[in-house]
Amino acid sequence: MSAAGPDDRRPWPDALKWDENGLIPVITQDAASGRVLTLAWMNRESLRETVSRGRAVYWSRSRQRLWEKGEESGHFQKIRAIRADCDGDALLLSVEQVGGIACHTGRESCFFRELRNERWIPVDPVLKSPREIYGSS
Amino acid sequence: MSAAGPDDRRPWPDALKWDENGLIPVITQDAASGRVLTLAWMNRESLRETVSRGRAVYWSRSRQRLWEKGEESGHFQKIRAIRADCDGDALLLSVEQVGGIACHTGRESCFFRELRNERWIPVDPVLKSPREIYGSS
Repeated sequence: MSAAGPDDRRPWPDALKWDENGLIPVITQDAASGRVLTLAWMNRESLRETVSRGRAVYWSRSRQRLWEKGEESGHFQKIRAIRADCDGDALLLSVEQVGGIACHTGRESCFFRELRNERWIPVDPVLKSPREIYGSS
Repeated sequence: MSAAGPDDRRPWPDALKWDENGLIPVITQDAASGRVLTLAWMNRESLRETVSRGRAVYWSRSRQRLWEKGEESGHFQKIRAIRADCDGDALLLSVEQVGGIACHTGRESCFFRELRNERWIPVDPVLKSPREIYGSS
Protein backbone atom coordinates (compact mmCIF):
# COMPACT_ATOMS: atom_id res chain seq x y z
CA MET A 1 0.00 0.00 0.00
CA SER A 2 2.89 2.33 0.55
CA ALA A 3 3.05 2.85 -3.21
CA ALA A 4 -0.71 2.94 -3.58
CA GLY A 5 -1.27 6.44 -4.85
CA PRO A 6 -3.00 7.71 -7.94
CA ASP A 7 -0.42 5.88 -10.05
CA ASP A 8 -1.22 2.52 -8.52
CA ARG A 9 -2.75 0.38 -11.27
CA ARG A 10 -3.76 -2.55 -9.10
CA PRO A 11 -7.48 -3.08 -8.56
CA TRP A 12 -8.23 -1.06 -5.43
CA PRO A 13 -8.94 -4.05 -3.15
CA ASP A 14 -5.51 -5.49 -4.02
CA ALA A 15 -3.80 -2.39 -2.64
CA LEU A 16 -4.98 -3.46 0.83
CA LYS A 17 -3.22 -5.91 3.10
CA TRP A 18 -5.55 -8.73 4.05
CA ASP A 19 -4.50 -10.78 7.07
CA GLU A 20 -3.91 -14.53 7.17
CA ASN A 21 -7.68 -15.03 7.46
CA GLY A 22 -8.39 -12.74 4.52
CA LEU A 23 -9.68 -9.99 6.82
CA ILE A 24 -8.95 -6.33 7.48
CA PRO A 25 -9.94 -4.32 10.59
CA VAL A 26 -12.45 -1.55 9.95
CA ILE A 27 -12.97 1.49 12.18
CA THR A 28 -16.36 3.13 11.77
CA GLN A 29 -16.83 6.76 12.71
CA ASP A 30 -20.02 8.81 12.81
CA ALA A 31 -19.71 11.56 10.21
CA ALA A 32 -21.80 13.96 12.24
CA SER A 33 -20.73 13.43 15.87
CA GLY A 34 -17.18 12.29 15.18
CA ARG A 35 -17.65 9.43 17.64
CA VAL A 36 -15.82 6.21 16.91
CA LEU A 37 -18.67 3.72 16.84
CA THR A 38 -17.22 0.28 16.24
CA LEU A 39 -14.23 -1.79 15.31
CA ALA A 40 -15.28 -4.62 13.02
CA TRP A 41 -13.80 -6.76 10.26
CA MET A 42 -14.28 -7.16 6.53
CA ASN A 43 -13.28 -9.72 3.96
CA ARG A 44 -13.12 -8.87 0.27
CA GLU A 45 -16.73 -9.80 -0.33
CA SER A 46 -18.05 -7.66 2.51
CA LEU A 47 -16.04 -4.69 1.27
CA ARG A 48 -17.44 -5.13 -2.24
CA GLU A 49 -20.96 -5.36 -0.80
CA THR A 50 -20.35 -2.27 1.34
CA VAL A 51 -19.39 -0.29 -1.74
CA SER A 52 -22.21 -1.59 -3.91
CA ARG A 53 -24.97 -1.26 -1.28
CA GLY A 54 -23.68 2.00 0.17
CA ARG A 55 -24.18 0.51 3.63
CA ALA A 56 -21.67 -1.14 5.95
CA VAL A 57 -21.44 -4.90 5.51
CA TYR A 58 -18.98 -6.63 7.80
CA TRP A 59 -17.67 -10.15 8.17
CA SER A 60 -18.88 -11.63 11.43
CA ARG A 61 -16.01 -13.66 12.84
CA SER A 62 -18.25 -15.27 15.47
CA ARG A 63 -20.98 -16.25 13.00
CA GLN A 64 -18.63 -16.70 10.04
CA ARG A 65 -20.93 -14.94 7.64
CA LEU A 66 -21.57 -11.57 6.00
CA TRP A 67 -23.44 -9.26 8.30
CA GLU A 68 -25.08 -6.04 7.18
CA LYS A 69 -24.98 -3.71 10.13
CA GLY A 70 -28.58 -2.97 11.10
CA GLU A 71 -30.10 -6.08 9.51
CA GLU A 72 -31.75 -6.91 12.87
CA SER A 73 -31.81 -3.56 14.63
CA GLY A 74 -32.58 -1.31 11.68
CA HIS A 75 -29.53 0.71 12.67
CA PHE A 76 -27.87 0.71 9.27
CA GLN A 77 -24.69 2.62 8.54
CA LYS A 78 -24.86 4.67 5.36
CA ILE A 79 -21.43 5.13 3.81
CA ARG A 80 -20.13 8.65 3.38
CA ALA A 81 -16.48 7.83 2.76
CA ILE A 82 -14.01 4.97 2.89
CA ARG A 83 -10.39 5.60 3.76
CA ALA A 84 -7.31 3.38 4.00
CA ASP A 85 -4.28 3.97 6.17
CA CYS A 86 -0.68 4.45 5.04
CA ASP A 87 0.11 0.74 5.38
CA GLY A 88 -3.11 -0.38 3.73
CA ASP A 89 -3.86 -2.70 6.63
CA ALA A 90 -6.81 -0.86 8.15
CA LEU A 91 -9.92 0.93 6.87
CA LEU A 92 -11.87 3.88 8.22
CA LEU A 93 -15.53 4.31 7.32
CA SER A 94 -17.28 7.62 7.74
CA VAL A 95 -20.98 6.87 8.11
CA GLU A 96 -24.38 8.23 8.82
CA GLN A 97 -25.51 6.04 11.72
CA VAL A 98 -29.24 5.44 11.35
CA GLY A 99 -30.97 5.86 14.69
CA GLY A 100 -27.82 7.27 16.24
CA ILE A 101 -27.14 3.90 17.85
CA ALA A 102 -24.36 1.53 16.82
CA CYS A 103 -24.05 -0.69 19.90
CA HIS A 104 -26.23 -3.71 20.63
CA THR A 105 -26.52 -2.36 24.21
CA GLY A 106 -28.50 0.61 22.84
CA ARG A 107 -25.66 3.11 23.14
CA GLU A 108 -24.32 5.40 20.44
CA SER A 109 -20.89 3.77 20.42
CA CYS A 110 -19.58 0.35 21.38
CA PHE A 111 -16.73 2.18 23.15
CA PHE A 112 -18.75 3.16 26.21
CA ARG A 113 -16.45 1.87 28.96
CA GLU A 114 -13.64 4.02 30.24
CA LEU A 115 -10.69 2.94 32.34
CA ARG A 116 -10.85 4.78 35.66
CA ASN A 117 -8.88 3.75 38.74
CA GLU A 118 -8.17 0.34 37.21
CA ARG A 119 -11.81 -0.41 36.46
CA TRP A 120 -13.89 -0.30 33.28
CA ILE A 121 -16.72 2.10 33.97
CA PRO A 122 -19.70 2.53 31.59
CA VAL A 123 -19.80 6.28 30.97
CA ASP A 124 -22.31 6.64 28.13
CA PRO A 125 -26.10 6.49 28.43
CA VAL A 126 -28.33 3.78 26.98
CA LEU A 127 -30.41 5.63 24.38
CA LYS A 128 -32.85 2.81 23.71
CA SER A 129 -33.25 -0.51 25.48
CA PRO A 130 -32.09 -3.61 23.59
CA ARG A 131 -35.55 -5.08 24.22
CA GLU A 132 -37.07 -2.17 22.35
CA ILE A 133 -34.51 -2.44 19.57
CA TYR A 134 -34.64 -6.17 19.02
CA GLY A 135 -38.09 -7.03 20.36
CA SER A 136 -38.77 -9.22 23.37
CA SER A 137 -38.48 -12.51 21.52
CA MET B 1 -16.10 -8.43 28.64
CA SER B 2 -19.86 -8.40 28.31
CA ALA B 3 -20.07 -8.73 32.08
CA ALA B 4 -17.22 -6.32 32.70
CA GLY B 5 -18.91 -3.50 34.51
CA PRO B 6 -18.26 -1.90 37.86
CA ASP B 7 -18.95 -5.27 39.51
CA ASP B 8 -16.27 -7.05 37.54
CA ARG B 9 -13.57 -8.09 40.00
CA ARG B 10 -11.05 -9.31 37.48
CA PRO B 11 -7.88 -7.23 37.07
CA TRP B 12 -8.78 -4.76 34.34
CA PRO B 13 -6.46 -6.21 31.67
CA ASP B 14 -8.11 -9.62 32.11
CA ALA B 15 -11.48 -8.18 31.12
CA LEU B 16 -10.09 -7.68 27.61
CA LYS B 17 -9.99 -10.31 24.89
CA TRP B 18 -6.45 -10.79 23.64
CA ASP B 19 -6.12 -12.55 20.31
CA GLU B 20 -4.18 -15.73 19.60
CA ASN B 21 -0.99 -13.64 19.45
CA GLY B 22 -1.74 -11.91 22.73
CA LEU B 23 -2.65 -8.67 20.96
CA ILE B 24 -5.59 -6.28 20.83
CA PRO B 25 -6.30 -3.65 18.13
CA VAL B 26 -6.11 -0.06 19.32
CA ILE B 27 -7.79 2.90 17.63
CA THR B 28 -6.22 6.24 18.48
CA GLN B 29 -8.23 9.43 18.13
CA ASP B 30 -7.11 13.03 18.52
CA ALA B 31 -8.95 14.48 21.50
CA ALA B 32 -9.02 17.95 19.97
CA SER B 33 -9.69 17.43 16.26
CA GLY B 34 -11.65 14.19 16.57
CA ARG B 35 -9.60 12.72 13.72
CA VAL B 36 -8.89 9.01 13.85
CA LEU B 37 -5.10 8.95 13.69
CA THR B 38 -3.98 5.33 13.67
CA LEU B 39 -4.90 1.73 14.11
CA ALA B 40 -2.15 -0.08 15.98
CA TRP B 41 -1.75 -3.07 18.29
CA MET B 42 -0.93 -3.64 21.93
CA ASN B 43 0.10 -6.60 24.00
CA ARG B 44 -0.35 -6.63 27.77
CA GLU B 45 3.03 -5.11 28.43
CA SER B 46 2.51 -2.21 26.03
CA LEU B 47 -0.86 -1.46 27.60
CA ARG B 48 0.70 -1.45 31.07
CA GLU B 49 3.45 0.86 29.80
CA THR B 50 0.89 3.13 28.14
CA VAL B 51 -0.94 3.53 31.42
CA SER B 52 2.19 4.02 33.53
CA ARG B 53 3.93 6.45 31.13
CA GLY B 54 0.77 8.30 30.14
CA ARG B 55 1.92 8.03 26.54
CA ALA B 56 0.91 5.54 23.86
CA VAL B 57 3.17 2.50 23.69
CA TYR B 58 2.27 -0.03 21.03
CA TRP B 59 3.51 -3.47 20.05
CA SER B 60 5.19 -3.31 16.67
CA ARG B 61 4.20 -6.45 14.81
CA SER B 62 6.79 -5.85 12.10
CA ARG B 63 9.66 -5.20 14.52
CA GLN B 64 8.33 -7.50 17.25
CA ARG B 65 9.10 -5.05 20.03
CA LEU B 66 7.53 -2.37 22.19
CA TRP B 67 7.34 0.94 20.39
CA GLU B 68 6.61 4.22 22.08
CA LYS B 69 4.86 6.36 19.51
CA GLY B 70 7.09 9.36 18.87
CA GLU B 71 10.33 7.76 20.05
CA GLU B 72 11.95 8.70 16.71
CA SER B 73 9.74 11.54 15.49
CA GLY B 74 9.06 13.28 18.79
CA HIS B 75 5.38 12.99 17.94
CA PHE B 76 4.30 11.41 21.21
CA GLN B 77 0.68 10.71 22.03
CA LYS B 78 -0.34 11.86 25.51
CA ILE B 79 -3.16 9.77 26.90
CA ARG B 80 -6.37 11.53 27.80
CA ALA B 81 -8.63 8.47 28.10
CA ILE B 82 -8.70 4.75 27.38
CA ARG B 83 -11.91 3.05 26.42
CA ALA B 84 -12.87 -0.55 25.67
CA ASP B 85 -15.69 -1.72 23.45
CA CYS B 86 -18.67 -3.84 24.44
CA ASP B 87 -16.95 -7.08 23.48
CA GLY B 88 -13.66 -6.12 25.10
CA ASP B 89 -11.77 -6.96 21.93
CA ALA B 90 -10.76 -3.43 20.89
CA LEU B 91 -9.46 -0.29 22.60
CA LEU B 92 -9.93 3.38 21.84
CA LEU B 93 -7.36 5.91 22.99
CA SER B 94 -8.15 9.58 23.18
CA VAL B 95 -4.86 11.44 22.92
CA GLU B 96 -3.16 14.76 22.62
CA GLN B 97 -1.06 14.28 19.48
CA VAL B 98 2.20 16.16 19.97
CA GLY B 99 3.07 18.11 16.82
CA GLY B 100 -0.34 17.38 15.34
CA ILE B 101 1.21 14.66 13.18
CA ALA B 102 0.66 10.94 13.69
CA CYS B 103 1.66 9.55 10.29
CA HIS B 104 5.23 8.79 9.23
CA THR B 105 4.39 10.54 5.94
CA GLY B 106 4.07 13.82 7.83
CA ARG B 107 0.28 13.94 7.77
CA GLU B 108 -2.06 14.39 10.71
CA SER B 109 -3.64 10.97 10.29
CA CYS B 110 -2.52 7.71 8.74
CA PHE B 111 -5.96 7.53 7.12
CA PHE B 112 -5.23 10.03 4.37
CA ARG B 113 -6.30 8.03 1.32
CA GLU B 114 -9.91 8.03 0.24
CA LEU B 115 -11.60 5.66 -2.16
CA ARG B 116 -12.84 7.64 -5.15
CA ASN B 117 -13.85 6.09 -8.45
CA GLU B 118 -12.14 2.85 -7.52
CA ARG B 119 -8.82 4.50 -6.68
CA TRP B 120 -7.13 5.40 -3.42
CA ILE B 121 -6.53 9.14 -3.56
CA PRO B 122 -4.40 10.99 -0.99
CA VAL B 123 -6.68 13.77 0.21
CA ASP B 124 -4.84 15.21 3.22
CA PRO B 125 -1.86 17.58 3.11
CA VAL B 126 1.67 16.73 4.24
CA LEU B 127 2.23 19.06 7.19
CA LYS B 128 5.95 18.40 7.55
CA SER B 129 8.28 16.42 5.32
CA PRO B 130 9.48 13.05 6.64
CA ARG B 131 13.03 14.26 6.01
CA GLU B 132 12.43 17.14 8.37
CA ILE B 133 10.81 14.87 10.94
CA TYR B 134 13.33 12.06 10.91
CA GLY B 135 16.43 13.83 9.64
CA SER B 136 18.20 13.06 6.39
CA SER B 137 20.20 10.12 7.71
